[in-house]
Amino acid sequence: MIKTVEFLENGIVRLIDQRLLPTEEVVVDCKNYLELAEAIKNMTVRGAPAIGVAAAGGVALGAREITTTDIGKFKAEFEKICDVIGGTRPTAVNLFWAVERMRGAVLGATGAGVEELKGRAANEAKKILAEDLLINETLGKNGADFIGDGETVLTHCNAGALATAGHFGTALGVIKAAFGTALGVIKAAHLQGKRISVFADETRPFLQGARLTAWELKKEGIDVTLITDNMAGYCMKKGLVQKIVVGADRIARNGDAANKIGTYSLSILAKAHGIPFYVAAPISTIDYNIPNGDHIPIEERDLREVTHVGNRQLAPDGIKIFNPAFDVTPNENIAAIITERGVATAPFEQSLDKLRR
Amino acid sequence: MIKTVEFLENGIVRLIDQRLLPTEEVVVDCKNYLELAEAIKNMTVRGAPAIGVAAAGGVALGAREITTTDIGKFKAEFEKICDVIGGTRPTAVNLFWAVERMRGAVLGATGAGVEELKGRAANEAKKILAEDLLINETLGKNGADFIGDGETVLTHCNAGALATAGHFGTALGVIKAAFGTALGVIKAAHLQGKRISVFADETRPFLQGARLTAWELKKEGIDVTLITDNMAGYCMKKGLVQKIVVGADRIARNGDAANKIGTYSLSILAKAHGIPFYVAAPISTIDYNIPNGDHIPIEERDLREVTHVGNRQLAPDGIKIFNPAFDVTPNENIAAIITERGVATAPFEQSLDKLRR
Repeated sequence: MIKTVEFLENGIVRLIDQRLLPTEEVVVDCKNYLELAEAIKNMTVRGAPAIGVAAAGGVALGAREITTTDIGKFKAEFEKICDVIGGTRPTAVNLFWAVERMRGAVLGATGAGVEELKGRAANEAKKILAEDLLINETLGKNGADFIGDGETVLTHCNAGALATAGHFGTALGVIKAAFGTALGVIKAAHLQGKRISVFADETRPFLQGARLTAWELKKEGIDVTLITDNMAGYCMKKGLVQKIVVGADRIARNGDAANKIGTYSLSILAKAHGIPFYVAAPISTIDYNIPNGDHIPIEERDLREVTHVGNRQLAPDGIKIFNPAFDVTPNENIAAIITERGVATAPFEQSLDKLRR
Repeated sequence: MIKTVEFLENGIVRLIDQRLLPTEEVVVDCKNYLELAEAIKNMTVRGAPAIGVAAAGGVALGAREITTTDIGKFKAEFEKICDVIGGTRPTAVNLFWAVERMRGAVLGATGAGVEELKGRAANEAKKILAEDLLINETLGKNGADFIGDGETVLTHCNAGALATAGHFGTALGVIKAAFGTALGVIKAAHLQGKRISVFADETRPFLQGARLTAWELKKEGIDVTLITDNMAGYCMKKGLVQKIVVGADRIARNGDAANKIGTYSLSILAKAHGIPFYVAAPISTIDYNIPNGDHIPIEERDLREVTHVGNRQLAPDGIKIFNPAFDVTPNENIAAIITERGVATAPFEQSLDKLRR
């Protein structure tokens, strides 16, 4: 069985190295919280919910590493660890959500000793991981009705088991399959017995679609066709695509949704072709603190992601490069936002508010 | 000086190997017409006008290779050569146009001997090359007024000197710079003293934007920023792009224009953002024989272009791949078609007909 994020008994956070997929299936063991922080930064682990789960594990690992028995010093060091983990990437809100949950679980406890707080951290991280698996199963089922028998769904980037705490590759008892968010919807429809095909955008520059989504769907036995990002419009025009489902890294209160660069363009193309465009994400992706997508910071990543694939240079030296990692799809381009608590439709300000507890 | 296509005195067709740019500047000498046919197929030379010029040189080279002195046998062999060269790629009409011109120049001559016909072939090919250089200069000037001082132009694929017979890298007397088609418009505006910046889509899967357009504009001293194809919509939304100019591989009588895959999506995005979208191409790109874009065959190329970059595998084995090399932009998404004979605007059926001689 492959696990995207796994917590070992000794606090170590084990990640499948997503940089090496699909040609190598290798795990990386983060033995301290700084290694875990680096693994988030360098995209060993990526995908908003997976980053959240890994971050929780990293905070628990960091707590375990603290050597002081003084409760005041422990809390100060713990805060520092939370800041380091929380500062690894700027766009996905699940990271901050997970760190805040860890902070609350540990610092909210009064009268507890250092060892108890370490135990609380470990338990909270495990809870976040377990919840993530269940959330994705529910979310997938909530969205499955949108996908009809015989339809082809186009997706962008990877919003699959690899973007969540995803356990997959074998039967899992209660959890029948690895879900993920956008791919969770597709997999749930597939498990309902519908014949579903998927077009996967390769998703430059980091190629999450080619490397991860194609690999994951193949493992699950779901029909997948890989295309380059710039072929999506042509496929829509040819009538080859009936639905679009993507994940999200942060959703504003009004439904504006940040996701991997290229998602915005897809939403425009979907609108022009009358194709419903769905966003699938857990409630933890919704940032109720911001009114709209203008408030979502867009990470710009290393220019080498654009100029090189591996060691192969694709572009001449000495030119400018632009590498925004995300864009924001405005709510008017979204048919529905699918969460584990239900489905939100326009007006999103109200429908998303109803899903808030 | 770098020349995209060059005819050596001994009939050899010399090409800069566009598969190795931007990291290696290597020429390939095609010593017989079959080598030239292969060079078109494998994209050593690419770009609709460049393919036309290279094809003309290939037909002349083939004529030179014919050993018979019997005029009837010569003509039969010549026809075969034209068929082989004409069968190398299906979408760009300039290929067929050039082969037809060569056929007319050689087979239209009555009473001429074999040596004279070989001479006619060589001369016609040289004429096509020389005309191409002048056409692009004129075309560039005809389009330059569309580009305002201080504007940023987005382009897709490579419709530059590398896509034509382009000679560039040094001053050229009458021809002051290498032009190309879409980049010809940009270069002409630049030569008028306007401050022009360019966003170049990398253009997956063959990366003509990253490898060729970025390299060519850098050589010309024009400000260029490389983006992945899926960033174009984001750049438009951010107000970073004022104009879009692309080339074409075949334009139907009604103005529908086939160009590199992804161009259609760009045209939809341009429309959604109110950005004028221009197509720049020589008259030889217009196929007056077809009423609209539905009649343009779309080449599907080797799946390895999508799954690999060099020897690096980007996608898992055992999945489906789709690799259409072109798409068709409908005339209603095009603000103007810029040619060497003038600028056509809607209704294109009439305006393109006026440019026909």
